[in-house]
Amino acid sequence: MTERKTTRSTSTLSSSSSAGSKRTNYKRKPRRLQRTVAKKSSAHRRVIGNNYSKKPDGKGGKLRVAIVGGAEEVGRNMTLIEYGKDIVLIDMGLQFPEEDQPGVDYIIPNVSYLKGREKDVKGVVITHGHYDHIGGIPHLSPVLHHPPIYGTKLTNGIIKKRQEDFPDKGQIDLREIDVDKSINMGVFTLEFFRVNHNIPDSVGVIIHTPEGTLVHTGDFKFDLQPVMDEVADFHKIASIGQQGVLALLSDSTNAAQPGHQLSESKIGNTLDSIFRDAPGRIIVGTFASLLNRLQQIISISEKYGRKIVIEGYSMRSNIEIAHKLGYLKMNPKTVISAREALKMPPQKVAIMCTGAQGESRAALMRIANREHRNFRIDKDDTVIFSSSVIPGNERTVQRLKDTLLKEGAHVIHYQMMDVHAGGHAKAEDLKLLFRLLNPKYIIPVEGNRFLLEASKSIALELGWQDDKVHVVTNGQIVQFAGGEGKLTKEKIPTDYVMVDGLGVGDVQEVVLRDRQSLSEDGMFVIIVTIHEQTGKLVGSPDIISRGFVYMKDAKHLIEDAREKVRKIVDKGSQNTTSNPQWLKNKLRDDMGQFLFQKTQRRPMILPVVIEV
Amino acid sequence: MTERKTTRSTSTLSSSSSAGSKRTNYKRKPRRLQRTVAKKSSAHRRVIGNNYSKKPDGKGGKLRVAIVGGAEEVGRNMTLIEYGKDIVLIDMGLQFPEEDQPGVDYIIPNVSYLKGREKDVKGVVITHGHYDHIGGIPHLSPVLHHPPIYGTKLTNGIIKKRQEDFPDKGQIDLREIDVDKSINMGVFTLEFFRVNHNIPDSVGVIIHTPEGTLVHTGDFKFDLQPVMDEVADFHKIASIGQQGVLALLSDSTNAAQPGHQLSESKIGNTLDSIFRDAPGRIIVGTFASLLNRLQQIISISEKYGRKIVIEGYSMRSNIEIAHKLGYLKMNPKTVISAREALKMPPQKVAIMCTGAQGESRAALMRIANREHRNFRIDKDDTVIFSSSVIPGNERTVQRLKDTLLKEGAHVIHYQMMDVHAGGHAKAEDLKLLFRLLNPKYIIPVEGNRFLLEASKSIALELGWQDDKVHVVTNGQIVQFAGGEGKLTKEKIPTDYVMVDGLGVGDVQEVVLRDRQSLSEDGMFVIIVTIHEQTGKLVGSPDIISRGFVYMKDAKHLIEDAREKVRKIVDKGSQNTTSNPQWLKNKLRDDMGQFLFQKTQRRPMILPVVIEV
Repeated sequence: MTERKTTRSTSTLSSSSSAGSKRTNYKRKPRRLQRTVAKKSSAHRRVIGNNYSKKPDGKGGKLRVAIVGGAEEVGRNMTLIEYGKDIVLIDMGLQFPEEDQPGVDYIIPNVSYLKGREKDVKGVVITHGHYDHIGGIPHLSPVLHHPPIYGTKLTNGIIKKRQEDFPDKGQIDLREIDVDKSINMGVFTLEFFRVNHNIPDSVGVIIHTPEGTLVHTGDFKFDLQPVMDEVADFHKIASIGQQGVLALLSDSTNAAQPGHQLSESKIGNTLDSIFRDAPGRIIVGTFASLLNRLQQIISISEKYGRKIVIEGYSMRSNIEIAHKLGYLKMNPKTVISAREALKMPPQKVAIMCTGAQGESRAALMRIANREHRNFRIDKDDTVIFSSSVIPGNERTVQRLKDTLLKEGAHVIHYQMMDVHAGGHAKAEDLKLLFRLLNPKYIIPVEGNRFLLEASKSIALELGWQDDKVHVVTNGQIVQFAGGEGKLTKEKIPTDYVMVDGLGVGDVQEVVLRDRQSLSEDGMFVIIVTIHEQTGKLVGSPDIISRGFVYMKDAKHLIEDAREKVRKIVDKGSQNTTSNPQWLKNKLRDDMGQFLFQKTQRRPMILPVVIEV
Repeated sequence: MTERKTTRSTSTLSSSSSAGSKRTNYKRKPRRLQRTVAKKSSAHRRVIGNNYSKKPDGKGGKLRVAIVGGAEEVGRNMTLIEYGKDIVLIDMGLQFPEEDQPGVDYIIPNVSYLKGREKDVKGVVITHGHYDHIGGIPHLSPVLHHPPIYGTKLTNGIIKKRQEDFPDKGQIDLREIDVDKSINMGVFTLEFFRVNHNIPDSVGVIIHTPEGTLVHTGDFKFDLQPVMDEVADFHKIASIGQQGVLALLSDSTNAAQPGHQLSESKIGNTLDSIFRDAPGRIIVGTFASLLNRLQQIISISEKYGRKIVIEGYSMRSNIEIAHKLGYLKMNPKTVISAREALKMPPQKVAIMCTGAQGESRAALMRIANREHRNFRIDKDDTVIFSSSVIPGNERTVQRLKDTLLKEGAHVIHYQMMDVHAGGHAKAEDLKLLFRLLNPKYIIPVEGNRFLLEASKSIALELGWQDDKVHVVTNGQIVQFAGGEGKLTKEKIPTDYVMVDGLGVGDVQEVVLRDRQSLSEDGMFVIIVTIHEQTGKLVGSPDIISRGFVYMKDAKHLIEDAREKVRKIVDKGSQNTTSNPQWLKNKLRDDMGQFLFQKTQRRPMILPVVIEV
């Protein structure tokens, strides 16, 4: 999309070559940048060591950087960059819940540090269109009074599409990034460079600040043979490195893995041979968001004359957006409906579907479990899992594979053949990045502690000093002043903000604890009606229990429990100090103990005392 | 332990050399065996191809084999071997619950096929002392009227110790296996051979039947340099292979992994160098049941003059048993108390603890979270995860590592260094086993479908025909007659039997579904008291909710809900056809819809109508 008019804009677009040559037309050009440009235009100096230039003037505020989300997890990515009053945010992602957060849809970054400072947020840059980078937008944009949000064309297409699911959240202020132009946001000037990932139109961000230049990679890999994408902009990266980088914030997702990341094109070769030799139908499970992968599967299907059925709403919608915006090439006749596919010989059909993570309601699981409207597994089917397994899903994915095998399918996954390439730099790629940018400081981002430490190890191996590589926790401020970057003890709030249905942030620890407790041993509601004056039982106590024992098989236990309740109430009514609150506590304690003795389980006991 | 007297014994012990030479004294010697022995004693024939000898006579029942548990999961291992009326069981393990079985302690094999045939169970052989092979004993032995259970000395020590936790389950009939002797069990004659695993005294089982010889490996690996254990009995395995094996049931746990399994001694070298160089305290997290590993850690600690604190009840008790029975060598002074350790310089201390799987209540997690009574992480601590990660625990283990790193520890795990060796044969080990035993049929056991198929692929690679390798589902009968083994469609019951507290098998699908549903969106109890005649509301409706919304923050919602309840009851009281059941249904439906509209969540609605 193109830039929209807005009253609160503080940015202008200006042109600059991708190699970082002379830039003009900055609204407020930071002095540091002017010097850099001057230097750069005079000669292409060979840079040795960290040639970061110190802040030229002594005045002005300090530069503060915090990872709001993405330093202790994979997901809910957001980086905050602050100088004086001005703030720029990079990414606004979501994270899928941990095991101890049942029922939660997802988690978004905590922006309570920005409360009252909404107008200081000069811009939000989105590096690419994956949910762990865009997923917080519908919820956080209104909270921040709709600051300008910048993304590349495809990224914005995906953001806009998702926004349709949140009609009540107000209009977001979406603006398009031209990778060859810079953008002013308050005191900051931003530039961009293309990176590879497994979705096209991904960018890294260069943030020129009065204290020096920061570089944020977003999610990235270097792919020398990308598919339907340009090669990462090595020239621009090298040029920025030559000009001097104060600090690099770099993707750590695959930092613990040795070697180089596989090229997407390599996957193509493997997929090609599988498509060539498969005796029957091919079913490819992958992520809806791996657009480069979807492109390959479509191209190879076309090559071998297979028609494609797309199963999964998100996959269909991503393909539509990417195709419409020119990021996906396909013959529109390649895609057919399930009904058409059922009439064709299986060796002419490929099904491309979601659910490779074992999601229970996704297409692949329903096909495996014979619950899919149109498709069952046939003996000659080849099922390809063209994605990695997200940590935590290993068992579910294994069960899905087992089911497919039992149904007779031939199953191929990335541990057997190269049917998946990750989207993130591995150790050797990070070394190249570090060498090209040669930053004074490195702040690993996007990963849990273990992955951040793996990034740090790589930097130390290359000769960075321990105090030049800052492994931070979420919210921890790194402060730059006079060319020095210090890890402070200051921490901005980063508590989980959980989205559950329509509720944002209303599910708190106590609710989660209750959910966990309910899932362990269920619950046991005891309802007693007592006479207001005498405290004597009226009628029989009611007992409702769920998730504790199978009630039909436990009649005896329930009858004993009811008898025990009667006795407790009886005893209470003879006790002059008794009252409904006392009785409730008594019921909770005594019945808890009683049931534990009988079953060794601890259901949640909920006593209700009704006085009539 | 030595054999106990029992009235129902059908077995005798007889001696036979480990190389399988002449055996005598069988109570009922099967004719097939006699022939084999005769052959064997005449000459050491070089065996080429499958020299399985066909059943010599045409009479007698068929041989039926079923994997009761362990063909669709890792765990609850049990194999059933049946000929005519006689039955032998191998192993009686437990399985830890799946993600969709919250609150369940563990799952045990289903023995309902044996109901009414308890006396036909001539013996239960336990291959080694791990819970996935012994864990069902306390629950299933009484159900089967306490059949004789056979284990090696250490295995029996562990079984007896566990039995102490179940004083009400009756006396089990535990008998000791002498690996050099055979045992008759009804029509079967059993022999044993030593295998390596990561607990000493593990055996494989040879079952001579009238239809031919079966071999069951139990869990095994070949370790040419084992630690505190003998090398697997290659001679006996080779000799059995020469005599002819009808079918091999072999461990598939690591069949999908290429190459050979690492020797336990290799781990020793790595651990040795870590212990040599560690600047401070060493904390080793591992399984309580990896006795060979515990031995190594103890030996290396002694070598470097470190004292050991053992944290974790199960670890302490396993070490005690193994030490008492002579399966663990240590200087009793090596183990010290936590209190003593706190007074010593950290470089003189090692802590050996449970919790390497991220178990929330285990020692390592409590140390990491600063919740341990005695220990906190210090900056110079080295934490070694000397175990693999059980599928499903990846995320929890990762979080534990992250916490330890944040606390300042140096963390080492098996993906970084060889600090763990698996206990199971990998692909090349299985090839050696298949070549040595040269069975006519192969039935992969102990693994989910994917792993069983991996075993099968190995067999096919070596030249076995597709119809000679039977990948079975749990309970599926393989029937042998006239030398042919057929995969039948007959299936004995194998439904989950869940142990939850004192309940065995009483937690069923409906209870689990309720637990899951409760964990997703919690519950909402509505209690209305109505007048018996008029149906009019008495007092105010009571609402109890847990795990749905945080009640204190949702006063508005609860008040609206209460108002809605009032209206429903009011309307009902004007309705002549209304009754308490109608009102309950109405409340469930309407309030469910109301709450979903307001929150997009679906708590379990539990209406209670009290008439006064």
